[in-house]
Amino acid sequence: MFTPSGRRGKVPVGSSVLNAARMLGVDLDSVCGGRGICGRCQVTPTMGDFPKHGIVSSAENVSGFTDVEERYRDRKGLADDRRLGCMALLEADLVVDVPAESQVHRQVVRKDVNLGSVDVDPVVRLHLVEIDPPSLDDPAGDAERLLRALATQWNLTNVEVDRDVLADLQRDARAEGWSVTVAVRDDSMVCAVWPGYHEQVLGVAIDVGSTTVAGHLADLRSGAVLASAGRMNPQIRFGEDLMSRVSYVMMNPSGAEELTTVIRRALDELIGELVHAAAAERRDILEVTLVGNPIMHHLFLGWDPRPLGEAPFALVTDRALSLPTSDLDLDVHPAGRAYVLPCIAGHVGADTAGAILADRPHLRPGVQLLVDVGTNAEIVLGDGDRLLAASSPTGPAFEGAQISSGQRAAPGAIERVRIDPVTLEPRIRVIGSEAWSDDPGFESVAADLGVNGICGSGIIEAVAELFLAGVIDRDGVVAGAAADRTNRVVADGRTFSYRLWDGIHITQNDIRAIQLAKAALYAGVRLLMDHLGVDEVDGIRLAGAFGSHIDVKYAMTLGLIPDCDLGEVSSAGNAAGSGALIALLSGASRREVEEVVRKIEKIETATEPRFQEHFVEAMAIPHRSAPYARLRTIVDIPEPSTTTTSQRRRRTRRTNQEAE
Amino acid sequence: MFTPSGRRGKVPVGSSVLNAARMLGVDLDSVCGGRGICGRCQVTPTMGDFPKHGIVSSAENVSGFTDVEERYRDRKGLADDRRLGCMALLEADLVVDVPAESQVHRQVVRKDVNLGSVDVDPVVRLHLVEIDPPSLDDPAGDAERLLRALATQWNLTNVEVDRDVLADLQRDARAEGWSVTVAVRDDSMVCAVWPGYHEQVLGVAIDVGSTTVAGHLADLRSGAVLASAGRMNPQIRFGEDLMSRVSYVMMNPSGAEELTTVIRRALDELIGELVHAAAAERRDILEVTLVGNPIMHHLFLGWDPRPLGEAPFALVTDRALSLPTSDLDLDVHPAGRAYVLPCIAGHVGADTAGAILADRPHLRPGVQLLVDVGTNAEIVLGDGDRLLAASSPTGPAFEGAQISSGQRAAPGAIERVRIDPVTLEPRIRVIGSEAWSDDPGFESVAADLGVNGICGSGIIEAVAELFLAGVIDRDGVVAGAAADRTNRVVADGRTFSYRLWDGIHITQNDIRAIQLAKAALYAGVRLLMDHLGVDEVDGIRLAGAFGSHIDVKYAMTLGLIPDCDLGEVSSAGNAAGSGALIALLSGASRREVEEVVRKIEKIETATEPRFQEHFVEAMAIPHRSAPYARLRTIVDIPEPSTTTTSQRRRRTRRTNQEAE
Repeated sequence: MFTPSGRRGKVPVGSSVLNAARMLGVDLDSVCGGRGICGRCQVTPTMGDFPKHGIVSSAENVSGFTDVEERYRDRKGLADDRRLGCMALLEADLVVDVPAESQVHRQVVRKDVNLGSVDVDPVVRLHLVEIDPPSLDDPAGDAERLLRALATQWNLTNVEVDRDVLADLQRDARAEGWSVTVAVRDDSMVCAVWPGYHEQVLGVAIDVGSTTVAGHLADLRSGAVLASAGRMNPQIRFGEDLMSRVSYVMMNPSGAEELTTVIRRALDELIGELVHAAAAERRDILEVTLVGNPIMHHLFLGWDPRPLGEAPFALVTDRALSLPTSDLDLDVHPAGRAYVLPCIAGHVGADTAGAILADRPHLRPGVQLLVDVGTNAEIVLGDGDRLLAASSPTGPAFEGAQISSGQRAAPGAIERVRIDPVTLEPRIRVIGSEAWSDDPGFESVAADLGVNGICGSGIIEAVAELFLAGVIDRDGVVAGAAADRTNRVVADGRTFSYRLWDGIHITQNDIRAIQLAKAALYAGVRLLMDHLGVDEVDGIRLAGAFGSHIDVKYAMTLGLIPDCDLGEVSSAGNAAGSGALIALLSGASRREVEEVVRKIEKIETATEPRFQEHFVEAMAIPHRSAPYARLRTIVDIPEPSTTTTSQRRRRTRRTNQEAE
Repeated sequence: MFTPSGRRGKVPVGSSVLNAARMLGVDLDSVCGGRGICGRCQVTPTMGDFPKHGIVSSAENVSGFTDVEERYRDRKGLADDRRLGCMALLEADLVVDVPAESQVHRQVVRKDVNLGSVDVDPVVRLHLVEIDPPSLDDPAGDAERLLRALATQWNLTNVEVDRDVLADLQRDARAEGWSVTVAVRDDSMVCAVWPGYHEQVLGVAIDVGSTTVAGHLADLRSGAVLASAGRMNPQIRFGEDLMSRVSYVMMNPSGAEELTTVIRRALDELIGELVHAAAAERRDILEVTLVGNPIMHHLFLGWDPRPLGEAPFALVTDRALSLPTSDLDLDVHPAGRAYVLPCIAGHVGADTAGAILADRPHLRPGVQLLVDVGTNAEIVLGDGDRLLAASSPTGPAFEGAQISSGQRAAPGAIERVRIDPVTLEPRIRVIGSEAWSDDPGFESVAADLGVNGICGSGIIEAVAELFLAGVIDRDGVVAGAAADRTNRVVADGRTFSYRLWDGIHITQNDIRAIQLAKAALYAGVRLLMDHLGVDEVDGIRLAGAFGSHIDVKYAMTLGLIPDCDLGEVSSAGNAAGSGALIALLSGASRREVEEVVRKIEKIETATEPRFQEHFVEAMAIPHRSAPYARLRTIVDIPEPSTTTTSQRRRRTRRTNQEAE
């Protein structure tokens, strides 16, 4: 009997544990095919009486420790209770435990990269085979004899040999007496060959963001992440945001080519860094997966991004792609292939497909909202049956851009803000330190890091706290009356600003920018809710850096996201990158994301009149009454301001025009 | 009603002839999809009374000549009785003739390249499509909208877009208002795209011989051969015959690479020559097919030929290959693909597969023998049910090598020999002239061309005529007694020679070399006959240059081939090259040759004791009695020599040892 599967049955006396596992359909790994080389089939014979199963499992029921196992132990180590399943022979009834790491379809839980649990099921597997040597009476070619060996030794029948492997096969098969390790992709294509036994097969998952490029190096057999690294996207020198890079391409005949060259070089350097960190070999990398927004996606693929820069934002393709890594100038194994997750629509990219794969809103119960906020907000909403996606033009305010003292989330940026409702005095925290500004240690922090500006999550907290403190009203107007109570509120032309820190003010324009951004985000979400026919959501996941840093309480205070139990609102981490990693480790997940993306209903905000209506309505900060009933239990939302309806209408119209 | 198919049926009044043809399943070509551009759908409305079919077909029953047709006529010409099927609308009953050139599956008979008739059914077809422009409400990518258009406009559903086409598609689709011509390979893969209407799609078929490389450029739509050309194989400078080239590789570390480089360059230059001759464009070439013996095959594919130079002669693969032409450094369309016919065994190459495809011994009735004589003889024997193949080590004697005055078949080489049985005086003819040496004009021929040596077919005729004249006996011994009758027979050490021409002797060693070669060939054929269980053959086809030049009567006199009605013995021309051309023009033929080759029983002569026995027996020149009963009716075979059986046996044993 095998544990933990519970599978049992009769096998001939003298069968190896590995063969018994195969006969009984037990998931027990092996690369070398039972030669005591790879050590993948380690098992633990369990001694004892199992009356419920009618088994008395004793040490005599299994053959003794072999020389082969001793050699393996000397070479690679083997725990005392472990045997190699291919060497341990069954003499009588035995209970055998298959540890998780000996299972082919092992489940890997990776908290560090927000993977949840993934069934490791890579598209590339290694197999050691012994090919029949050629003989005069066997006119079959080297490739055909290899295929015969794969069929008899690994039960792989529907396999072809990639034409690029043939020359290597000819040489490598003769190097070690017709014993080779082959990599088989999708159980159908021999894509690489090594003489004799080869152990390592690696993959890289990369999230190509417009600001940063981040990747993981993983062992495709175990699913273990061996290294993670990130670097700036060097395209930044052609333009901070996506649109300015597209503009660069419009202005420069060879612009697209330059942008492609630098991003591919960055991807290759990232791979170099990952390989260096893990002391691995580039040539052991056989799979690369990639996600990115549509413009990054088109640029690393060498396609013109200009059609994505203007309506109707036409993608070259909305399907997943598999292509040789050499097409992307990545220096890995020559048989390496890159899998690029599908873009969903012209504004909803492969990064969102990755986020969907990581977060799986289509599998969670209830109405689920997944939001990834960047220059645009990608919004995915589903109810387990349907899944809708849209992109909303939030602009870069949430990233700290277009804010008077705004800056990217970096050490020294203000990320947390509290304003005392009585004194209207602020307390702040900056990235890089846990200290609040009224803590004794803060001075040295400020000296070290500087207090340089305010990042996206900081400005949201600042505006929300100003609202909660009554400094601004529901329309976002800084009340000049507050200037009487505190010298923090100062006249600033025809409007007023709030002095948060030396040289760092929250201006009326800053507040307006945040209002525009949050109205766009909320309107996009509302539009999808309309299409789905729902009035509330059961869970909200915030993906990306913004989602990780933002305090959801403040996001809800300002009305970025619809009302929801705060316990059901959480960060999805770098969901896009996690999705790339999942696609790297699991072939089934690729089919899943392709199918989900194909079924997604793509909603175009630009052509929906209701989006405009929702946008206008969402400019104000939510009323303490409905629809934020649940939020009210947590924060104290002030009474409506005394602004007249006509004033409000006028103002809303203006800001709406600004948004166009 | 359509002629010649006889298909008829009801279609809505006002249907175009093209649409009617599609509705009724009539084979009527179109590239532009009914836009009056391509002119592929030309038809001839036939006027008259067809009482048997109940049709009165009159000029009023079809719509009038259109402006579009006038423009087409001005631009490209249109016969008076022709209409464009897409423009001519059916008003009532009509009889419409579809000329052969308007059929998609037109049959092409090409006498010049020995093609027989081929159903043109190329793997690549062009289709003009109108893609829906992108719109905000249609998030589908360019590629997906193209696929939609192919489905609705060409009924091509199971199609993908090659990833290499995507960048071109993005650009070209926008160049002419979303109208593009695409090349679709195997009805399943869009492999190339052009803006607007594109007409030309070409292919090249190449036979890579060890001495010469020959190719045809063909129009893939019509099947027309636009140009043919040949050139020397530049590898000759590394060794005249195959084995010396393999030796070169064994001696030189970079030898294989050098041989690959020069042959690929020769193939590319040949393509350049073909394109130049036809005033065509390299970029219109989308398909290349290749045949060659196993060593040529491995060398142009960039594989090590050394395993083919020694037992067990292991091929890298015995299957057909399809690979990008760029892998072979051929400068054609970037989406070009090369199809390499399968090798059959280590000594039986893709050239033999080509010959099988051209000659189709598997489809002809009776026991059919196909022989291609080069350095080795490739032998194929079948009975309509089974098909067997072997290679027999004839050596290069049949090519004039290892013959004292032998030379390659080239101008000035003796190719025809007659010896007067009474005077023992010879008459000869040389390549490059029709004059016999006793014709008055021969002197100037000899002065022009020289009489330089004797080629393969010449030496066979010389030996056969010497035998028929009684100068040599059945054991091939030059009878010294003849020296008494003529000064043409001269002592030459311990043996005698025959002086054929000034400085050109047929020596005892020459005769021995021919005996060894012909015994090997015959023994190979006999071995296959044994395996097939037959005693005679119904038809013999001789492929290759040797087969074209040899006089089969003499081949049979010497016993190169088994007895057969001479009317059933013929040259198959350059069957290998014809096979490459067939594979170029017809996708179905590729599947046919792959299937036939897979089913072929490969016989290895080296390990068959019976081959040795047959070889020993075949050293002698056949007796006038059985088994050459049929041959005896044509040539007068002399009585057996007086050599004793024991002498013969001794001699045969010696020559057998020489052969080993």
